[in-house]
Amino acid sequence: MENEIKVILIGLGPIGRQIAKGILEKKGMRIVGAVDIAEDIVGKDLGELLELGKPLGVVVTNDAERLISRVKADIAIIATKSYLKDVYPQIALCIKASINVISTCEELSYPYYKYPELSSEIDELAKKHGVTVLGTGINPGYLMDTLPITLTGACQKVKSIKVTRMMNSSKRRISYQKKIGTGLSPEEFRGMIDEGKIRVHVGLVESIAMIAATLGWKLDEIKEFPPEPVLAEREITTSYTIVKPGHVAGLKSVAHGIRDGKPVIVLEFISHAAVEEEYDAVSIDGAPEIHEKIVGGVHGDLGTVAVIINMIPKVLNAKPGLVTMKDLPLPSAVTEDLRIYLNWKKTF
Amino acid sequence: MENEIKVILIGLGPIGRQIAKGILEKKGMRIVGAVDIAEDIVGKDLGELLELGKPLGVVVTNDAERLISRVKADIAIIATKSYLKDVYPQIALCIKASINVISTCEELSYPYYKYPELSSEIDELAKKHGVTVLGTGINPGYLMDTLPITLTGACQKVKSIKVTRMMNSSKRRISYQKKIGTGLSPEEFRGMIDEGKIRVHVGLVESIAMIAATLGWKLDEIKEFPPEPVLAEREITTSYTIVKPGHVAGLKSVAHGIRDGKPVIVLEFISHAAVEEEYDAVSIDGAPEIHEKIVGGVHGDLGTVAVIINMIPKVLNAKPGLVTMKDLPLPSAVTEDLRIYLNWKKTF
Repeated sequence: MENEIKVILIGLGPIGRQIAKGILEKKGMRIVGAVDIAEDIVGKDLGELLELGKPLGVVVTNDAERLISRVKADIAIIATKSYLKDVYPQIALCIKASINVISTCEELSYPYYKYPELSSEIDELAKKHGVTVLGTGINPGYLMDTLPITLTGACQKVKSIKVTRMMNSSKRRISYQKKIGTGLSPEEFRGMIDEGKIRVHVGLVESIAMIAATLGWKLDEIKEFPPEPVLAEREITTSYTIVKPGHVAGLKSVAHGIRDGKPVIVLEFISHAAVEEEYDAVSIDGAPEIHEKIVGGVHGDLGTVAVIINMIPKVLNAKPGLVTMKDLPLPSAVTEDLRIYLNWKKTF
Repeated sequence: MENEIKVILIGLGPIGRQIAKGILEKKGMRIVGAVDIAEDIVGKDLGELLELGKPLGVVVTNDAERLISRVKADIAIIATKSYLKDVYPQIALCIKASINVISTCEELSYPYYKYPELSSEIDELAKKHGVTVLGTGINPGYLMDTLPITLTGACQKVKSIKVTRMMNSSKRRISYQKKIGTGLSPEEFRGMIDEGKIRVHVGLVESIAMIAATLGWKLDEIKEFPPEPVLAEREITTSYTIVKPGHVAGLKSVAHGIRDGKPVIVLEFISHAAVEEEYDAVSIDGAPEIHEKIVGGVHGDLGTVAVIINMIPKVLNAKPGLVTMKDLPLPSAVTEDLRIYLNWKKTF
């Protein structure tokens, strides 16, 4: 790093584009490369893609390897897939070029539970090349793990933790509404579940594993239930479709962390078009009890973009290796000008 | 550290005693020394002092220096005074004996603002002796700094932050109710303010300075207002006294962090006997906005004891030097058995 943080963006879907815009609003960061495989955007200037009205001099390429061999970068933001096996090649490519990595890959937020060996491999590779790798976002990465973990910090005893994310999906991206089955009949929803086309929210298992590891709890198992449809009681009009009464307004995903036979970590992810009050709530049964609520909730896309950008200086200043949110200092909003973080290594 | 964390307690007032009890409930920690200057408890066994019904083999001494020269300890918990100048000699004594320190000293929670030189001195001394020093508690240390900082982690932009701690003092310790002027006439209250007998809540300035430093905000100034009395509208009976209508039910302390002429960090500490709904609330004006609330609030004493004990493993595993909550990994409740943390240094 000289006087700015050089960033490569890998994955320029809706979230990747919002991350790009967020980075462009800050001083002290520069986008030095942009990668995507979608044919309709390869070859476009990033400024054009983001509809900024001026070119940025960064052209979207589908050849990440070639880009990385030619461009010097401090960090890569990978916003491509949810499953670690799909994202691993991209992560390894960056690490081998000594580029730090933050990814929205849900499974990377706490990969030790599902992929203990692959996690060790990433950790060793990152240490060898002196870079840090983090998976994060709003959920997993923040609302259902980092925040409840932080809240346990005020407890002398913790018996159980319940986290509820209650979202109104009708205002979200159309692709998201489609993904959760909005407008389907109950039969169609069941069919989509059986075919694996509607899936459980990726990240609940990772959040439970992260909470348990932080608290030093050895779980019997982590149980993930198939998503349940939430049916509309009246007709609902969303930005995507009209949901008939009795049809699917959205879904509810639940996962349990079981300890000594009891569900001690309960995560509920509820997202449908009929939600009247959005919120994110954490309840801790312990001493003292904690009943915390973010009234209105945190917008998923805005929050994910925020967490990703806010963790950039923390990752650049962390020890090399694979890290998760629990290992890093408190998350916090980055200032308008990231240059203040450039000398952290010396003072921190 | 061998197979347990050895703790010396300095200060055995109400909070110190609760910390002692909290430590005794955990496996993997052992109290190896107890210090206090109160004549009525010096020479008593700690078990007797805590009314455990059995001796602990740890006798309260008023000679910290002698104790430390004879007993090997990993960490000292100092719960004596609010002002850093009063606590500094105790901190220095521990550091020079290579003992890590956590203190409830409010001014130590973020000492760089009021005491830049003394902070450097503590930092250098701690580094020289390879130990870590932290000031923390529920407030300052958690509710009005750590938690709001963590919440900004989900924001792309932060314009301003308001934190309100709304406490019902009628259930608190009698010494605390007295300290905030409960039962006084308004004239008596003003007199106590003028004489410096009722003081502003120590820690608001430190919390503001910590938030600003974390966000990279350069403040024009931190403004602390004198406490305002909150008057009872009807007669209120507390565990300490009966408050007549028009007399003081408690107080409100406010402090502002001013940036570009505007109060961008506003902390309100409200504690009186007529509070109907207790809560701790954080509102962030930014993108996205965050409106967070802990319904029922967090009990001050229980919370302070929790934060102090929960930070022990994090301090033992931190880099040497003076640290604050913003520098350490996420706070979290320690497990029932702290021995899992003993090898953190190797894995973390």
